[in-house]
Formats: sequence, structure tokens, C-alpha cells
Amino acid sequence: MSRRKFLKGAAATGAAAAAAAASSFPAPAIAQGIKELKMVTSFPKNFPGLGTSANRFVKRVEQASGGTLKIKLFNAGELVGAFEVFDAVSKGDADLYFSAEYYFPGKSKAFNFFTAVPFGMTAPETFAWIYYGGGQELWDELSGGFNLKPFIAPSTGVQMGGWLNKEINTLDDFKGLKFRMPGLGGEVLRALGVAVVNLPGGEIFPALQSGAIDGTEWVGPWHDLAFGFHKVAKFYYWPGFHEPGTCGSYAMNRSTWDSLSEEHQMIVQLAIEAEAQIQTAEYNARSPESLDKLVNENGVQLRKYNDELLNAIGGIAGEVVAEIGNSDAMTRKVYDSYIKFRKTAIGWSKIGIHGYMEARTLPFKYG
Amino acid sequence: MSRRKFLKGAAATGAAAAAAAASSFPAPAIAQGIKELKMVTSFPKNFPGLGTSANRFVKRVEQASGGTLKIKLFNAGELVGAFEVFDAVSKGDADLYFSAEYYFPGKSKAFNFFTAVPFGMTAPETFAWIYYGGGQELWDELSGGFNLKPFIAPSTGVQMGGWLNKEINTLDDFKGLKFRMPGLGGEVLRALGVAVVNLPGGEIFPALQSGAIDGTEWVGPWHDLAFGFHKVAKFYYWPGFHEPGTCGSYAMNRSTWDSLSEEHQMIVQLAIEAEAQIQTAEYNARSPESLDKLVNENGVQLRKYNDELLNAIGGIAGEVVAEIGNSDAMTRKVYDSYIKFRKTAIGWSKIGIHGYMEARTLPFKYG
Repeated sequence: MSRRKFLKGAAATGAAAAAAAASSFPAPAIAQGIKELKMVTSFPKNFPGLGTSANRFVKRVEQASGGTLKIKLFNAGELVGAFEVFDAVSKGDADLYFSAEYYFPGKSKAFNFFTAVPFGMTAPETFAWIYYGGGQELWDELSGGFNLKPFIAPSTGVQMGGWLNKEINTLDDFKGLKFRMPGLGGEVLRALGVAVVNLPGGEIFPALQSGAIDGTEWVGPWHDLAFGFHKVAKFYYWPGFHEPGTCGSYAMNRSTWDSLSEEHQMIVQLAIEAEAQIQTAEYNARSPESLDKLVNENGVQLRKYNDELLNAIGGIAGEVVAEIGNSDAMTRKVYDSYIKFRKTAIGWSKIGIHGYMEARTLPFKYG
Repeated sequence: MSRRKFLKGAAATGAAAAAAAASSFPAPAIAQGIKELKMVTSFPKNFPGLGTSANRFVKRVEQASGGTLKIKLFNAGELVGAFEVFDAVSKGDADLYFSAEYYFPGKSKAFNFFTAVPFGMTAPETFAWIYYGGGQELWDELSGGFNLKPFIAPSTGVQMGGWLNKEINTLDDFKGLKFRMPGLGGEVLRALGVAVVNLPGGEIFPALQSGAIDGTEWVGPWHDLAFGFHKVAKFYYWPGFHEPGTCGSYAMNRSTWDSLSEEHQMIVQLAIEAEAQIQTAEYNARSPESLDKLVNENGVQLRKYNDELLNAIGGIAGEVVAEIGNSDAMTRKVYDSYIKFRKTAIGWSKIGIHGYMEARTLPFKYG
């Protein structure tokens, strides 16, 4: 994913906005029996997918509560900057954020495991770990230290490996390549000799067009199509080993959470779980149709990283993730839980969903 | 899946229960500003997964509504039989059911497409089709004809191919085999010369033990382990081509739905979408740990149907599903939408989640 620097502009204007808004929206406010909360996000207003999901969440909470729980939505830069949401909610300047935990590695490296891990778990596996594999309990402990009550949010799904104008066939082909990839995936590429760069979303297209960078990844077919990368890059590489099931997150200020009635707590929880269900489904619907358009209407050439490359990248990913996992005691607990669950999950997925999908690629006629 | 005949006992006692209960629970009842609804399910009380999900749904709706929307839960046989829930809710004898649409092919063959299709879509693909691919609109039209408002419910995930004591290597090995498999999957096996049988859940184990049947499928590792099939069958076949993403369903009587306040409508919708998210995740968590126990603690031998077999089965599945799809005009509309979405979805999954999962099987060290 690549929202990080994409949102830099929003972040820059956030501080001023925060100063202006902080005094006028005490949180939580109670007027005439109505509870009012402030929600901040790391995403641009009305951004398809993540932005529209936030709009719907707010609207649904208000409807389900019969108007007794109102949430005022501040998108990136409207109250605080995209990456200031964690501190804002932790301190109580806002009540709730919608973001992605890997934006906050400065708070704890453990947060990486609640968003995306190179060669880690897919979205359904991550949801299973969070709800029924001990993930939520560890996350509660981790975020509790920052006065936050966390929830898993929608997943944008498996990412693509990236856009390139040059074919990659050997590890040597990576060396010296200027490639835009944020986060732990970027660390993996760096270890391969790639000159990893970070660019705001708006700067990627011209950089790729001018040759200032050789390649980039973004979110996946839906958002990649919208950004028009197919106009300046020939090859669309897969698989997206660096972010196989990127999940967003919500977190509520713990004191705000404790102040809510049981009724309001349940409405908030239901509305978040519902977004995790339906917004993830929108990514799973838009990605196929967008990929279809890229390939069949725009002549994009798909290229697969070969197995030798993927095996080498996988080994390095394992090292990078283990190093992160050993950052401190809390991160180690999260890492151990994640790795254990991942191993068992793969045992099932190989003969379950993966085994089935392999069978579905056989040449038989269907439909 | 195999709940159909498993629940036969419950169904048999249902009629008497219905007669006894019908007069004492008029629906919907309003007393002191409290709305009371009756919910019927096709599953046994407290059955892990589907039964506990229903319990949680009811509890959460009551909490989210501050006690103003109460749902009285009648599991299979408590008010009506497992397969009488459709008629009960359609007629207004109950307000809401939790079931699986493929239990009602007698109402329309189109209902099959909203539960499970041999060589059809996985759970995430099905959710994408329902919410964002036109599936819900078609379902609303279909169920609307029966005075029902339908919703997609949790998925039990990909099933296993089944338990056998004999290895299956050629199409000839299927001939004359006595195998328990309900629904469209059973039709596919029948076309291969299998003597397809249906047995209630409680009768499968002794039948397999005595050799009255040669093989069976059930729900997946979680429930298969609980039923103890590993004690009487050596081989556990995969992949589960017959039900690759079985989804449950809720449906509310349309007049009841229209009588609900916007607040209560939203709470019901959120609670159903939340169950689709978290109960699906429980299956994705329990299946891996159960498979691990079956293989590593109980010596179960996994066997894969070979590609020649799967290719032949796939072709027959395509024919069986097309024949069902041509049953009538409405079913044809659903079939066309399903097949179109499936094709595009596979285009993405091959290089997205499937492509990624293949890369993850490479021998690199991780964790």
C-alpha cells in the first residue's frame, strides 16, 4: 500500500486544522441526551473504498442509535494530520480513529502485525487470528498501553507486486532498481539491493513517466487503474508478496469507550464488524473488474515474479519479519502468536481454499 | 455440507412443536414499546458455529437496541422443523429465519446459487457478488416473490472432499461407490456412477463403520473432527469441489421488515453483517487447528483427488450447474450473473490470493 506518503500533504495541513478545531469540539459532548463523538481518519475525504466506508460507518451508527450517537467525521487533515490520529485519540483530542496500524511503528513495532506482513497471512486468515486466534487479546494489551480500544477494519485484499517497465528475471535485475514500496515490503526489497524510495501518491505517476523511478506498487487493481499507471508502465507484476492481506483498523479512546452505554458500545462494534465484512467485499468485487479492464481494455501485460526470485524474497521476508518481531517483549509475544497461527492456517489453506482454487484452474468447460 | 438429513429428526418433531407454539407467539408483538420477533433456524440449539452464532445474533440485537427489539429464538424443531422455516417466515408465522438457501430448491432452483455451487465461488467471492456484484438485487427479487427480505449469513468455508477407506485414482474407482453427499455435489457424483446416498448426521458414523457406505463428506475439519470420522475412515480427500464456500442465509418476513423502525432495521442488518464477518472467521480459525489435530494427533491420511479426476468432475459440475441454471427465467438470470462474476473473480484470484498462496508454499524459511 502507499497511502503513507500519499497523504503527506494532508498531514502537513493537519496541525493547523487541529489547532483551529480542538477548542470547538470537546469530546465526548452530551447535549439533550445525544452523545457526540469525534472520529479522525488517515484517509482523504470520500476516497473510494476507505473514505466511503468511513462515511457509511458514521451514517449507520447514527441510524442504528436512533440519532442518540452522533459521530462527527474528520478525514485526514481536517482535524489532525493523517498520521496524528493515533496521538489525537490516545490523548482524547478525538474519540475514535480509522487508520492502519502499520502507520504507527514509532509507537511499537508490534503494530505492523495488525496491518500487513510480507509473506504473512491473507485477509481471511488475519480475521481468523484476530477474532478467534488470540490476536484481539494481544492487540487489546498493546493498544491498551496507549489508552486505546482497537478493532480490525476492512481489508483492501492482496496487493499486486507492482508496475515496471523492465522485466525482472534474476535477483541481479533488482540491483539498483529505483522502486517505490513503503513499510516492511520496502525493507525486503532494500535487502535485495533495490534503491527503495517513498513518494506521495500524487508524485508517483510523473516519477514513473519521467523515469525518476523504475517501478512502484500502489494498492491493487481498483486504485491502480484509477491512478492510470498502465499509461506509463508496461508490466504489472504479481504476486503482491509484500502485503498479502492489508487490514485497516479502528481504535477508540479507552475512556470514551468506557463512558458509552452498553447499547452504544454494541452499535459501534457491530458497525465496525459490518464494515470489515462489506468493505472488504467491495475490494474483492472491484479488484477483479479493474484487473479485467487493465488487461483486456488497456493492454497491460501481467508478469509473474519467478519462483526462484519469490523463494529468495520469501527467505529475506522471514528474516526481516523475525527481526521486527524481536524488537521488544510485547512485539515478540505478538510475533510468536502470529507465526504460530500462520503456520497452522497454511496447513489448512493448502488443501482447503488454495487446493480448491488450483483444481478450478483445470481446463474443464464451465459456464 | 450435510445438515439436511442430519436435521431430519428435528424436522419430524417440528410440526407438533409448531402447532403447540403458533398460537402462543403472535408475531410481531409489541408490548410496552418493545418489539418482539420470532426467529426460527434450521440448526440444532447451541450447535457450535451455526447454533452459537444465532444465540449471539439475538443477544447483540437486544443489546444494541437497548432492549427495545427482542428476538425469541426457536432452533430446528422448536417451533417448526428445520426445513419448514422458509414457509413459516414467508407466511408470517415467524418473522425471521437463519438457514441455508439450498434447503429450498422446491421453491426455486435459483436458491442453490446463494449457498454453494460445485466448482463455484469461494466465500470471499460470494460475498463480493452479493454485496457489490448484483447478487443482492437478484436475491431480493427472488425472495421478494415469497414475501421475504434476504441477507447473506456466515460461511462455513471450503469443505473437504470426504472420508473414504478406499483410494480413488481413476474415474472407474467411483463406479458403484456408496457415498453420502447431498445437493448439487451429489448430482455430480451420481453422474460419475456413484451410488449417492443421504443419511442423517447421527447415522453416518455407524454406516461408515459397518461398511453400509464407503464414504461421506460432512462440513469440514472442525465438525468432522467432532463427529469422529477419523476413527472409521483412513483417507481424508481434498479438495472439496462440491461446496467451495457454503454460505448461510437470513431472511425476514417482508411485512415485518417494513414494520420495523429505521433504527431497528439498521440494527438487524448490522448484526447479520457482523455475524457474516466473525462467524466466518471462526470457521477459518477452527478448521486449521482441527485439521492439524486430525493429521498430527490422529494419524489421518490426506489424499488429493488427482487432476484427471478433478478435470472430469469439473466438466460434469459445469453441466449439472448449467442444467439447474436453465430451470426457469428467474434462475437463468441468477445463473448468468453468477457465472459472469465467477469468471472475472477467477481472473483476479489466480494472480491475487491464489497466486500469493502458491508463492507461500515455496521452501524458504519463515518463522
